[in-house]
Amino acid sequence: MSKPFLSLLSLSLLLFTSTCLATSSEFDRLNQCRLDNINALEPDHRVESEAGLTETWNPNHPELRCAGVSLIRRTIDPNGLHLPSYSPSPQLIYIIQGKGVIGLTLPGCPQTYQEPRSSQSRQGSRQQQPDSHQKIRRFRKGDIIAIPSGIPYWTYNNGDEPLVAISLLDTSNIANQLDSTPRVFYLGGNPEVEFPETQEEQQERHQQKHSLPVGRRGGQHQQEEESEEQKDGNSVLSGFSSEFLAQTFNTEEDTAKRLRSPRDKRNQIVRVEGGLRIINPEGQQEEEEEEEEKQRSEQGRNGLEETICSLKIRENIAQPARADLYNPRAGSISTANSLTLPILRYLRLSAEYVRLYRNGIYAPHWNINANSLLYVIRGEGRVRIVNSQGNAVFDNKVRKGQLVVVPQNFVVAEQAGEEEGLEYLVFKTNDRAAVSHVQQVFRATPADVLANAFGLRQRQVTELKLSGNRGPLVHPQSQSQSN
Amino acid sequence: MSKPFLSLLSLSLLLFTSTCLATSSEFDRLNQCRLDNINALEPDHRVESEAGLTETWNPNHPELRCAGVSLIRRTIDPNGLHLPSYSPSPQLIYIIQGKGVIGLTLPGCPQTYQEPRSSQSRQGSRQQQPDSHQKIRRFRKGDIIAIPSGIPYWTYNNGDEPLVAISLLDTSNIANQLDSTPRVFYLGGNPEVEFPETQEEQQERHQQKHSLPVGRRGGQHQQEEESEEQKDGNSVLSGFSSEFLAQTFNTEEDTAKRLRSPRDKRNQIVRVEGGLRIINPEGQQEEEEEEEEKQRSEQGRNGLEETICSLKIRENIAQPARADLYNPRAGSISTANSLTLPILRYLRLSAEYVRLYRNGIYAPHWNINANSLLYVIRGEGRVRIVNSQGNAVFDNKVRKGQLVVVPQNFVVAEQAGEEEGLEYLVFKTNDRAAVSHVQQVFRATPADVLANAFGLRQRQVTELKLSGNRGPLVHPQSQSQSN
Amino acid sequence: MSKPFLSLLSLSLLLFTSTCLATSSEFDRLNQCRLDNINALEPDHRVESEAGLTETWNPNHPELRCAGVSLIRRTIDPNGLHLPSYSPSPQLIYIIQGKGVIGLTLPGCPQTYQEPRSSQSRQGSRQQQPDSHQKIRRFRKGDIIAIPSGIPYWTYNNGDEPLVAISLLDTSNIANQLDSTPRVFYLGGNPEVEFPETQEEQQERHQQKHSLPVGRRGGQHQQEEESEEQKDGNSVLSGFSSEFLAQTFNTEEDTAKRLRSPRDKRNQIVRVEGGLRIINPEGQQEEEEEEEEKQRSEQGRNGLEETICSLKIRENIAQPARADLYNPRAGSISTANSLTLPILRYLRLSAEYVRLYRNGIYAPHWNINANSLLYVIRGEGRVRIVNSQGNAVFDNKVRKGQLVVVPQNFVVAEQAGEEEGLEYLVFKTNDRAAVSHVQQVFRATPADVLANAFGLRQRQVTELKLSGNRGPLVHPQSQSQSN
Repeated sequence: MSKPFLSLLSLSLLLFTSTCLATSSEFDRLNQCRLDNINALEPDHRVESEAGLTETWNPNHPELRCAGVSLIRRTIDPNGLHLPSYSPSPQLIYIIQGKGVIGLTLPGCPQTYQEPRSSQSRQGSRQQQPDSHQKIRRFRKGDIIAIPSGIPYWTYNNGDEPLVAISLLDTSNIANQLDSTPRVFYLGGNPEVEFPETQEEQQERHQQKHSLPVGRRGGQHQQEEESEEQKDGNSVLSGFSSEFLAQTFNTEEDTAKRLRSPRDKRNQIVRVEGGLRIINPEGQQEEEEEEEEKQRSEQGRNGLEETICSLKIRENIAQPARADLYNPRAGSISTANSLTLPILRYLRLSAEYVRLYRNGIYAPHWNINANSLLYVIRGEGRVRIVNSQGNAVFDNKVRKGQLVVVPQNFVVAEQAGEEEGLEYLVFKTNDRAAVSHVQQVFRATPADVLANAFGLRQRQVTELKLSGNRGPLVHPQSQSQSN
Repeated sequence: MSKPFLSLLSLSLLLFTSTCLATSSEFDRLNQCRLDNINALEPDHRVESEAGLTETWNPNHPELRCAGVSLIRRTIDPNGLHLPSYSPSPQLIYIIQGKGVIGLTLPGCPQTYQEPRSSQSRQGSRQQQPDSHQKIRRFRKGDIIAIPSGIPYWTYNNGDEPLVAISLLDTSNIANQLDSTPRVFYLGGNPEVEFPETQEEQQERHQQKHSLPVGRRGGQHQQEEESEEQKDGNSVLSGFSSEFLAQTFNTEEDTAKRLRSPRDKRNQIVRVEGGLRIINPEGQQEEEEEEEEKQRSEQGRNGLEETICSLKIRENIAQPARADLYNPRAGSISTANSLTLPILRYLRLSAEYVRLYRNGIYAPHWNINANSLLYVIRGEGRVRIVNSQGNAVFDNKVRKGQLVVVPQNFVVAEQAGEEEGLEYLVFKTNDRAAVSHVQQVFRATPADVLANAFGLRQRQVTELKLSGNRGPLVHPQSQSQSN
Repeated sequence: MSKPFLSLLSLSLLLFTSTCLATSSEFDRLNQCRLDNINALEPDHRVESEAGLTETWNPNHPELRCAGVSLIRRTIDPNGLHLPSYSPSPQLIYIIQGKGVIGLTLPGCPQTYQEPRSSQSRQGSRQQQPDSHQKIRRFRKGDIIAIPSGIPYWTYNNGDEPLVAISLLDTSNIANQLDSTPRVFYLGGNPEVEFPETQEEQQERHQQKHSLPVGRRGGQHQQEEESEEQKDGNSVLSGFSSEFLAQTFNTEEDTAKRLRSPRDKRNQIVRVEGGLRIINPEGQQEEEEEEEEKQRSEQGRNGLEETICSLKIRENIAQPARADLYNPRAGSISTANSLTLPILRYLRLSAEYVRLYRNGIYAPHWNINANSLLYVIRGEGRVRIVNSQGNAVFDNKVRKGQLVVVPQNFVVAEQAGEEEGLEYLVFKTNDRAAVSHVQQVFRATPADVLANAFGLRQRQVTELKLSGNRGPLVHPQSQSQSN
């Protein structure tokens, strides 16, 4: 046998071994957050629907695996209806643009909204009874909306411009008892798969299933034959036979057929011709509604169990007047957590809205008890992230539509560009997320500890501790002027 | 070198690579719940004992790995004693048949039961002192019993028929700080391994241990030589030398030898000749006892810490009068959760008992916040389970003794057979497990949303929302009659 | 082709396959706690600093992976300062020797300590303002100190002998949202990597990063070029440019340069020439201070949120008078848990200090709800650990400086040597860790159950239950005397 062959063989074997090891180490929990290089991520996949667009990030990005989350951006056209769906992971939605209405179905809660059919009087349908349903809530740009795990919700754009929203699915949340794959269950329609990366293998296997004998563990459980009906939809009802659905829901065969298989190509966001005919509590002033909700939520501190039916699920965090932190030259920060929106206690999630003016800096800080996901809403800027070994794992420009993962305890600083400000939302995987600011740590540390840690003279330590900004929002020019 | 050999080589390499990849992907957390096909599972392994039988399900079934649980079915003959054991995973036991007594040993709790030796007066043993021990509890068919993690318990069949029980071990429970392998620690006797699938590798290694030099990390820790005593038992005491046990427990050498090595083949369930001589509080009426326990548990709402010694650990959920949901033509559902049995709050588990009459249907629904494990107690029927992509991952007949895993948020519907009813228990991995019923979601959703989601006409939506059944238990014939 | 080559090939392939399978199974969660053989572990790695030594255990030891923890032993010379650092994992520190002061920086807490500069009057620095900072706490040998995740702290040895401490990092704690790799973030200085085992791959990749094109996911995010400044330090500030730091903190360029790159080889523990000039509340009597802290902690039962700024973080558990369990001939046990030190409720950790006199035995017991880590402080003795199958997975002598992992529910017994006593600390991964003692289980179990479980006669059971020791601390000689 020739030497070259042997070398080739050795090479091949080496290659396979290393492949094997690489593959294994990829699944090592110890490696999951070894992020030497974080990337700004844009959506990897898009599903076009009749009246909108669903974009998702591949959950296998190392950054997203480390944070244990998945993200979806949805655009719903005017008169578009995002069909009822639910997920085992809790969701936090931020409304980037537009307005709409949302309906959640909370089990065991009464149908408190009754459509005033008598006054609207649509004749010609005598058996028509007035429709009743659970509460509908309005939302608008700047709102965050909390969706508990397992609770179905639908969304409708009743505005004049596209409704754009970004959703966090916290797949590593304790509420999700399945694995970390993002799952969206649609109750109706013919939705297309939203996270194809996690489904490929499954579909392959599914095809195999039809060529292989089923029920291999004991011959007694035969797959009942129902192949006369083809599976058309991807909603959960399409997995049942129309005969069974008709029996169960006591409907006509035709209704049952439509329940399981709408045979349409409208996908998950459908157009409502003529607009959705639902109660539109437009008469109420928004401020009143919010006040009322706030009161309710304050009474209901002891939680999901007792007041779930009237629990407030949204909060506007983009209003300038609401800022928790404000520097007129640098920018502002607003936070929504379980103290301002109690339902977040059950989701174990919170959010922060940051607006930086031109050149404004959010000085170096770290998230004490949460991973955070920074999504750029408007403008451009630069983000710097440093890991535990002092390496800059991210130091790049960011722009509208990009997502940056900032792992727990990594030090991060944001800065708006010179030409326009920077506006971004931060999702955090803790309902009481806390931040530590490097400069506040300097202030809280004895001068002599700092002098010895950094090799600074007394004068320099005093400069570091006392001059400069008092808050974490900094405007560099204004500082040098004041000096 | 010949071509055929090269092909063979390529083939081999390919094979190994794919094996390697397959093996790796098997351990990927992302894949753990990719269940395209759920199987009804029957026990995989059996251990016969002197006075009973232990059957276990292989915890490596993909369904059980996804749910993160293990299951054991035990049959204890009359006068059989299941030896004291404990597990790092909390356990929920359902009594399928028979009756018995159970003793838990809660650390720090007093010996409140004193055997009335004086009146029973067994002469001939003058040094005999009256025996005292912790509370003993009676149980019977239809009870669920909660065993916290790490707490030893023994069970004795004091009835006339075999006692049959099915136990859930929630290995993925936060209380279990070890890995997801089920572990049962026996305090005494010579138990046989109950989950051999998880032990094989260990036993291999154990054999290796004896042929390989030990203490390889630093020569200073030599394995002390005690090979004069062979390890006979598998109880935790068999790992100590009898000399050490005699010293520690201050007993004679012979007693210590028996503690570590009973040298018997009776395994984990032993026959008690002449019956177990313990207090049998037969005099008390069961109803009284239960009432008393209920009162105690209501006072003790603030938990395990303060009232653990008197905490109620069992509840009967099979009594027809106890049903939480009842349809005289379709069936009934009873639930035990942390509201009815507060100890379940610490176990984070709950249970549901469902009885469906002939043809009765439990309409499509999903578990919002729990995985569920359906065990068929009696009768036969059919179960349908649909995943997030609308695939029927299970659509089969089920019969007595089978186990079906229903993952969180998967839609499930059960139906009793035409010839006999269906009776089953559902273990749920949440102490406040909540269910959402598809039909109730329809009712709570505005008519126009349904019309647009499914392409239904107004009349059909009204039919779907208002006609038919009001509850999730449905009897198809009675419906068509009423129509 | 020759036969030998074929054999060799087969062998190689076999080898690779088995390597591959072994590698995979190593990462199987099901295998993580299959410990057939536990080893006493000594530190694997040491980092020498100017004024001290950092020793770490390799977190990849199977025992430590099972328990989900990492350990660090630090020795700080007199006048040594351990630089400010934080970790996403909560830490529990035990002071083995010496005394010192510690400063934590809790976000949002006031600078309550003001240095009395005016009276101490260091002339020559007119612009010098009095320094203020957060509370400083003193500690001494026998203290445990709780450090929440994400909170920076520094330590200074103000005594005359080396300060020795052992720290547990609970990487599997719910507070750590990253993977199970231990991470220490230094705010300043030029620390050397403390857990090199977990970093190797990262550094390799880091080197690759510089030879590979960056920003491969979309050309729009270019790595900004800042290579004019070399990365010198390993602190989190070294990842930022000095220009940016100067801008942000409003300092001179030279100060900023020192912040990011102290260019020293002093590593993480530096010598403070002339001693650290900080408030030394030496005047207060320690007893008073402790009393005061105790009162505060009792008022502040409702937690971290409301009283975090004044929360007590330390407790002395080595004082003989504090023992929770005492046998004058065998030894004593002290426990610190969330009942004695409420902050432990948020760390979900507790500790136990055990002192055994010569030949003293801590009789067989198991941890109900925690993994435990036994660290030998002084003396020598022998530890026995038995797993669920009754195998002695550890039965060896232990000595000062060794660490032994005792997994949840494994049965363990300790015994001091014949020539000197044994003193050890046990870290436990539960803030309300509970222990079950085999002998107490015997006492709480009906005599006839024991008789049947172990094949004992009535007389032997009575001996087992009633004679001998009442407590878990046993002195063998004293027993045989009393018999």
